[in-house]
Amino acid sequence: MSQHYLEDFAVGQVYGTGRLRIDRERITTFAAQFDPQPFHLDDNAARETIFAGLAASGWHTAAVTMRLLVDGELKPASGIIGLGFEELRWPTPVRPGDELRVESEVLDVRPSKSRADQGLVKLRNTTFNQNGEAVQITVGTLLVPRKSRG
Amino acid sequence: MSQHYLEDFAVGQVYGTGRLRIDRERITTFAAQFDPQPFHLDDNAARETIFAGLAASGWHTAAVTMRLLVDGELKPASGIIGLGFEELRWPTPVRPGDELRVESEVLDVRPSKSRADQGLVKLRNTTFNQNGEAVQITVGTLLVPRKSRG
Repeated sequence: MSQHYLEDFAVGQVYGTGRLRIDRERITTFAAQFDPQPFHLDDNAARETIFAGLAASGWHTAAVTMRLLVDGELKPASGIIGLGFEELRWPTPVRPGDELRVESEVLDVRPSKSRADQGLVKLRNTTFNQNGEAVQITVGTLLVPRKSRG
Repeated sequence: MSQHYLEDFAVGQVYGTGRLRIDRERITTFAAQFDPQPFHLDDNAARETIFAGLAASGWHTAAVTMRLLVDGELKPASGIIGLGFEELRWPTPVRPGDELRVESEVLDVRPSKSRADQGLVKLRNTTFNQNGEAVQITVGTLLVPRKSRG
């Protein structure tokens, strides 16, 4: 797949990804290391909580989203380098067996003020489950190289 | 350590955490699974990139930050349940051997409009390395239970 430069991005474009399935064992393994709370670790304990059943850590969803983006259609020429986010939320819990994919909509494209060879692409990345429900929404900005002007 | 309810939080309070060290093997293991880009996987390849050396995935820093918070002083009574973030950025790369800790400053405390037994606590969570440099800054809101009014 060809790599993309700032000049290849335009407001309104939508880039997709493949799909990744999150099974129960991955949810609890990630949680045991990074987010060891009952609603991410154990079915019975999770049933009594606001999640009403086992749910993936939001940071697990975020990490899986990154993996999908790295393997997806965006392909900025110097890699996916996030400068920061102005929004990150998890509208729907991710459940064992969910299959996730991401759509990235281009919201803004502009050259960098400080670096002539770089630009900024603002994206809304929405992670969907297999039922088309948004499980994560981020709005963030990537650093993307400009084509060299030879 | 005692658990905290909405009434225990007040603007200006700062809650701390312990420390976690991120070594080279953890950086590359996380990256291989979730963010397989050269600057997170291999010293030599990373040297040629904007990071000028191996750096942890920002999502790894975010996950370690969550672990520190879960084990830290915040202790909301129903767990650390993030409703969303309005800011997330990584001002300084995390390098192999860095030792991280988090400070959470309370920015706002208010009852929930929709749920009488819950409230919202807005925090700025700053993750520092051993040199006191901020490696991650988030501003986000937790769902926190109110004391029952018996």
